[in-house]
Amino acid sequence: MTIRFKNARIMSMKDGEEIYEGELHVKDNKISYIGKEKEGNDKFDREIDCKGNLLMPGFKNAHTHSGMTAMRSYADDLALQDWLNNKIFPMEAKMTGEDCYELSKLAVLEYLTSGVTAVFDMYLAPYDIARCAKDTGMKFVQVSGINKFGPSLEELEERFLKINEGNPLSSFRLGFHAEYTCDLPLLEKISALAHKYKEPLFAHNSETKTEVKECMDRYGKTPTELMDSLGMFDYGGGGYHCVYFSDKDVEIFKNKKLHIVTNPGSNTKLASGIAPIKRYLDAGINIAIGTDGPSSNNCLDMFREMFLVTGLAKLTTEDASAVDALEVLKMATVNGAKAMGLSDADVLDIDKEADIIMIDLHQPNMQPLNNIAKNIVYSGSKMNVKMTMVHGSILYEDGKYFIGEEPEDIYRRANEIIKRIG
Amino acid sequence: MTIRFKNARIMSMKDGEEIYEGELHVKDNKISYIGKEKEGNDKFDREIDCKGNLLMPGFKNAHTHSGMTAMRSYADDLALQDWLNNKIFPMEAKMTGEDCYELSKLAVLEYLTSGVTAVFDMYLAPYDIARCAKDTGMKFVQVSGINKFGPSLEELEERFLKINEGNPLSSFRLGFHAEYTCDLPLLEKISALAHKYKEPLFAHNSETKTEVKECMDRYGKTPTELMDSLGMFDYGGGGYHCVYFSDKDVEIFKNKKLHIVTNPGSNTKLASGIAPIKRYLDAGINIAIGTDGPSSNNCLDMFREMFLVTGLAKLTTEDASAVDALEVLKMATVNGAKAMGLSDADVLDIDKEADIIMIDLHQPNMQPLNNIAKNIVYSGSKMNVKMTMVHGSILYEDGKYFIGEEPEDIYRRANEIIKRIG
Repeated sequence: MTIRFKNARIMSMKDGEEIYEGELHVKDNKISYIGKEKEGNDKFDREIDCKGNLLMPGFKNAHTHSGMTAMRSYADDLALQDWLNNKIFPMEAKMTGEDCYELSKLAVLEYLTSGVTAVFDMYLAPYDIARCAKDTGMKFVQVSGINKFGPSLEELEERFLKINEGNPLSSFRLGFHAEYTCDLPLLEKISALAHKYKEPLFAHNSETKTEVKECMDRYGKTPTELMDSLGMFDYGGGGYHCVYFSDKDVEIFKNKKLHIVTNPGSNTKLASGIAPIKRYLDAGINIAIGTDGPSSNNCLDMFREMFLVTGLAKLTTEDASAVDALEVLKMATVNGAKAMGLSDADVLDIDKEADIIMIDLHQPNMQPLNNIAKNIVYSGSKMNVKMTMVHGSILYEDGKYFIGEEPEDIYRRANEIIKRIG
Repeated sequence: MTIRFKNARIMSMKDGEEIYEGELHVKDNKISYIGKEKEGNDKFDREIDCKGNLLMPGFKNAHTHSGMTAMRSYADDLALQDWLNNKIFPMEAKMTGEDCYELSKLAVLEYLTSGVTAVFDMYLAPYDIARCAKDTGMKFVQVSGINKFGPSLEELEERFLKINEGNPLSSFRLGFHAEYTCDLPLLEKISALAHKYKEPLFAHNSETKTEVKECMDRYGKTPTELMDSLGMFDYGGGGYHCVYFSDKDVEIFKNKKLHIVTNPGSNTKLASGIAPIKRYLDAGINIAIGTDGPSSNNCLDMFREMFLVTGLAKLTTEDASAVDALEVLKMATVNGAKAMGLSDADVLDIDKEADIIMIDLHQPNMQPLNNIAKNIVYSGSKMNVKMTMVHGSILYEDGKYFIGEEPEDIYRRANEIIKRIG
């Protein structure tokens, strides 16, 4: 399959490259040409006139729990620990693998509306989620959320090996839920597994004050210090949320080249706090952005997250120039790809994977065209996503979905599931 | 013209009324029936099958400067006073009335995408803005932004009288820009004018720390105390922004039944601060929501504002249950209408003005239907606005605009204006 995008504006997100007018060709799952308008007699299976709209790398949603769509607006307005222990965990105990598969598909629909081409997903039933990736065409980088309730280390190792063989849309990284849901022997075993495969480790880290305080009480160490002392970061990795970091935590993340995935929508809605993004940026840490799950956020909207990343940084530093728009776009694309191990899906360039979105500039919130990057970060919304292409396939275009199933069927089943387990 | 909306869900926003399934009829500019499904042989000019989507009152954008669309993404990442004095004011000096007319039309397009059916607009060239209301069909409640640079009191009085005669889409309320752009004699004259017509007065108030400090230095009073001491609130009114209020300011607003219009997007982007909404709510003050102008926000998106109102309240009070979704929806609809003097356009009810929006529930971010109000506030986006009807006319439906002009022509002229004045 070959596709030609012509009359486009292109924001490649390559360091130092400005937006330019040109065209882009896709052959199968890769970018085969990118640059100025090209003369020639090449035939394409499809030619798309972009009418001056913007092509850019798809957003990487670097932390989410896709299968939690059933619990959207179900148990709101609660603090994190109450929400988790009294509402979410009991409901999850009733969820089947098939439920996860269905509910993840609902999330995929929403990712596509928000220009997301890959997700870093931590949830139950990884084989079913891998099946969702394969069936819908969305790119899922799964990360294990092992904790004291399961799965076993043996199961985890098997998932890691099996899901990483084969399907380019589906990969699996090592991780665990969080310090507070694991005991010390389990953390040690997880660290040993990471060493066995020389793999990075990811986990929720310092999301709330309570979490840090309780870890200090238990171990006399912050979660980051504890994980580091157990050798968990010897092959890299990172943390989700990272709202409450000590200076020493920042040093560890900096020295070990770990990734921070910030989740401002979720931290805001659950009143967890504001991550000091400017401080992490100044330390040179790679910062990516995630929506967190649809039960805590509640939406899967990278535009809202991008505005919150820069907006909350401006508020907390009392500096309107803090964390500028281009920096935020980098977090939402290139930095996310880096954290997720998607080095072939970071920028638009020849031979890179064709994970591309088209931003509709013919919408009133994108006009006038004073500064397109700022327009996207400060004014952009899901309605500006005209097309989402994942791995060379257009899965969403002009409000229509091409994931092999009708949205209404997916909605119906999601509503049935919540009726059963709610 | 008669329109029947059938198979709808209806959220009337009447106190205590739950969402129900039913239908709604519009005759000319008013609601002629609302309630359960209705048998009968009535003929309608148009029947719209809502397919279970939600009808609700349109959003009232209770503080904006529509004509500033030209400066969107033009002078970002600056603090308020620098942005205003060195970038915006010099550019505005070059703007013509025709420019204001054109640029306000660009804003109207965006309002429609965000379900806004009326705006509380403070800007230059009120006759041209009134013409924009008439030509596009959007409801503009203008408020004067008089300051020491103009207009004269006589001009202001003439605007007040002329714009309030006649067109139901266009009204004019008394106000002034802010304490810091007026001197004392001018404030006294404005107060006298309000007394002459027994009218409420509105102004920017306590948007930044600097503004309050400088007012204290000048007068030994906060802006609110000063305005109150001059009798400016003797017939009611309110303030835009209201980020830094003393306890005494809150008392004044409470006792005089004044309105607070909060602008969290703008306050966030300009790093001005976070208005203590929970405190105002507890004091029983009427709180409405505005986007502020597209140069400071930068978008005109009531969904982002609604999330920020509740999200920032949750963050600052460290309470995830603070300011719940229904309260926020009330601010964005009923409370806005109250502040703007639109008592016939507040809720959906018989004989009320037909300022109605349809929220598309057949989108992934609105599924499952656990709680529709929470879905709208926590997950909603512009793409959920399926239709916007103002004063009985559908101005926006399924992504198409019906304001008598093509968006592309409006975009082209906006880009030409910024080239000339920028």
